Amino acid sequence: MPTTETVAHSHSATLQLALALLERRSLTPDDAGCQTLIGERLAALDFELEWLDRGDVRNLWAVRGDAANGPTLVLAGHTDVVPVGAEALWHTPPFAPRIDADGWLRGRGAADMKGGLAAMVTAVERFIARHPDHPGRLAFLLTSDEEGPAIDGTRAVVDILHQRRERLDYCIVGEPSSESQFGDVIKNGRRGSLNGVLRVQGVQGHVAYPQRARNPVHQALAALDELVRQHWDSGNDFFPPTSFQISNLHAGTGANNVIPGELEVTFNLRFSTESDADTLKSRIEAVLAAHGLDYAIDWQLSGEPFLTRPGELTEAVTTALERLTGQRPTLSTGGGTSDARFIATLGPQVIELGPCNATIHQRDERIRAGDLDLMSEALEFTLDQLMR
Amino acid sequence: MPTTETVAHSHSATLQLALALLERRSLTPDDAGCQTLIGERLAALDFELEWLDRGDVRNLWAVRGDAANGPTLVLAGHTDVVPVGAEALWHTPPFAPRIDADGWLRGRGAADMKGGLAAMVTAVERFIARHPDHPGRLAFLLTSDEEGPAIDGTRAVVDILHQRRERLDYCIVGEPSSESQFGDVIKNGRRGSLNGVLRVQGVQGHVAYPQRARNPVHQALAALDELVRQHWDSGNDFFPPTSFQISNLHAGTGANNVIPGELEVTFNLRFSTESDADTLKSRIEAVLAAHGLDYAIDWQLSGEPFLTRPGELTEAVTTALERLTGQRPTLSTGGGTSDARFIATLGPQVIELGPCNATIHQRDERIRAGDLDLMSEALEFTLDQLMR
Ligand SMILES: [Zn+2]
Ligand SMILES: [Zn+2]
Repeated sequence: MPTTETVAHSHSATLQLALALLERRSLTPDDAGCQTLIGERLAALDFELEWLDRGDVRNLWAVRGDAANGPTLVLAGHTDVVPVGAEALWHTPPFAPRIDADGWLRGRGAADMKGGLAAMVTAVERFIARHPDHPGRLAFLLTSDEEGPAIDGTRAVVDILHQRRERLDYCIVGEPSSESQFGDVIKNGRRGSLNGVLRVQGVQGHVAYPQRARNPVHQALAALDELVRQHWDSGNDFFPPTSFQISNLHAGTGANNVIPGELEVTFNLRFSTESDADTLKSRIEAVLAAHGLDYAIDWQLSGEPFLTRPGELTEAVTTALERLTGQRPTLSTGGGTSDARFIATLGPQVIELGPCNATIHQRDERIRAGDLDLMSEALEFTLDQLMR
Repeated sequence: MPTTETVAHSHSATLQLALALLERRSLTPDDAGCQTLIGERLAALDFELEWLDRGDVRNLWAVRGDAANGPTLVLAGHTDVVPVGAEALWHTPPFAPRIDADGWLRGRGAADMKGGLAAMVTAVERFIARHPDHPGRLAFLLTSDEEGPAIDGTRAVVDILHQRRERLDYCIVGEPSSESQFGDVIKNGRRGSLNGVLRVQGVQGHVAYPQRARNPVHQALAALDELVRQHWDSGNDFFPPTSFQISNLHAGTGANNVIPGELEVTFNLRFSTESDADTLKSRIEAVLAAHGLDYAIDWQLSGEPFLTRPGELTEAVTTALERLTGQRPTLSTGGGTSDARFIATLGPQVIELGPCNATIHQRDERIRAGDLDLMSEALEFTLDQLMR
């Protein structure tokens, strides 16, 4: 096993594991040995490891205990990281992790999300040391395809679990949910995301002879304006209102004397649980049809929204965080998508809890080193409350 | 001088000259010797030749007679042609002109506008043979830069004529004005053409956080819709109403999760003499400002509109065409721009008269061979009426 020069004796087990994971250059979808390392730690705790690799993607499903005598709690996450951009612009090399004198743990993946993975492993190690015969089941679901297409990773594992009719009760995804300080925000849901590629057909022609052409841009403007002004829903206690955004818009040959023959518009809806994808599609097509457009749409549903209403899981995590940080976390459904959307289809209560996300996907990704120790303790105390 | 195999003894002088011009590969701005050939014919008639080349562009200003004792009549046109596209797709090679068994004169430039140039030269040759001491002045204004940027061609020659305070009375441009049969339409004006490149600024962001971004597409849609529905003017007896067309529209990074930071819109107005460029600009900027857009526009005025009201020139040409074809031509200001817009600034009555334009700028460009003989006769009879 590789060792890290910066691992000092004084670092906690959590930070030592985090450093060992961070030095692995696991650019998505490469796992670079991270799951083998974690798997060895879990095997030592009598977890049963099941490798569910697909193509280039490394997937691990590891289970310990008996579903018959208690709840199943899953700890989930990803070992892949996003590219580093211009490596020379980093203050410390992205895959030479270190804890600096100011207490920052630095390296690509520190926040998103190898730090969280380390905290999960050490929390489980301490919990099992105290409760070797805990009721119920503990499981890990790891993938190396969260930052990429997200097809052969968690989604594929969840498909297998669906086929096996696995019952999951609780799931904690270690994504960086915190904003200003560790534990201030946990995510208890995510908006749905629906993409559309709209093509409006016209008849190309010369600008000098508009009567012989039909300008698809002219035809579509009023319909698009109606769509961007649409009130889709008002959101609810957990979600902001559904939003519609045009992301790309293209028409024209480049010549300034040619009326374009086609307009292509790409748009995205982030939608609350007050709407569903099929209703949104129908409403959009109704607007386009009412304006008499000659059009076609390709739809791509990235994920239906999900929501974990306040319950045992949010309560246990909230209690743990409040005890450790002195502050009650806020529940939030904001932000981008994560693999939690796939796990949610299996029916468990799902939340995301992890370090501060201020530097994710950026240069000089970093978190407060001490936050990982806090996270590991918070997870251990959560297990204490739920696995008994 | 090159000769053409397809020149048969039986072809008229007009068709023989047309074939000689058509075999020269004068892809814009290359003149390929066309003006030298025409210049030799004019020099033989005692025209004074003045070469006004600029850069790659060949320009000829040729004059015969005395402005003091009669009107100045200019015959104008271009020797350059547009590219041929995929040469293999032509039924006969574009620069191997021929008159086929069905009476079509085929070749790039047959209609636009070497055919017209040949008719002009032979009309003048016959007119001078009968009236060697005609009153007034006859002139030719030729360029090889009409199909390209149109900066170093007629525009530059007109600038020189302006500086010399030349008085021009009549100008016939040999552009293909006819629609179904020769002489059915003459152009007595052209709409103005105004291009704008509009850039609307927003604030780029992630579609998941629309409140942190400002989508320039969303902001601009209502303003653009107002512009495309605008009633600019009602036109008049000679012009259709001014029209506004969006030719290009672009926004977006390509990613479907990014709100674009800028929208770029290219548009063109073809405008009647009821509007002028400055008023149109003001009206457009007023709409954009009323919608609160953060924008900039680059304007490019291709040409103000011009109009030759019915008078001596239209009357002479109409009389000639009616006598030869049995039909009165229609006056029209429709269609694209030509160099007539530059010549019009010198103040003469200007019309365009030429062969049928159905195949211009296309593959297998062709006209009825006999139409060039008709055109030459029509021009000769027009000279008879005006130069006396
Ligand atoms: Zn992540
Ligand atoms: Zn032309």
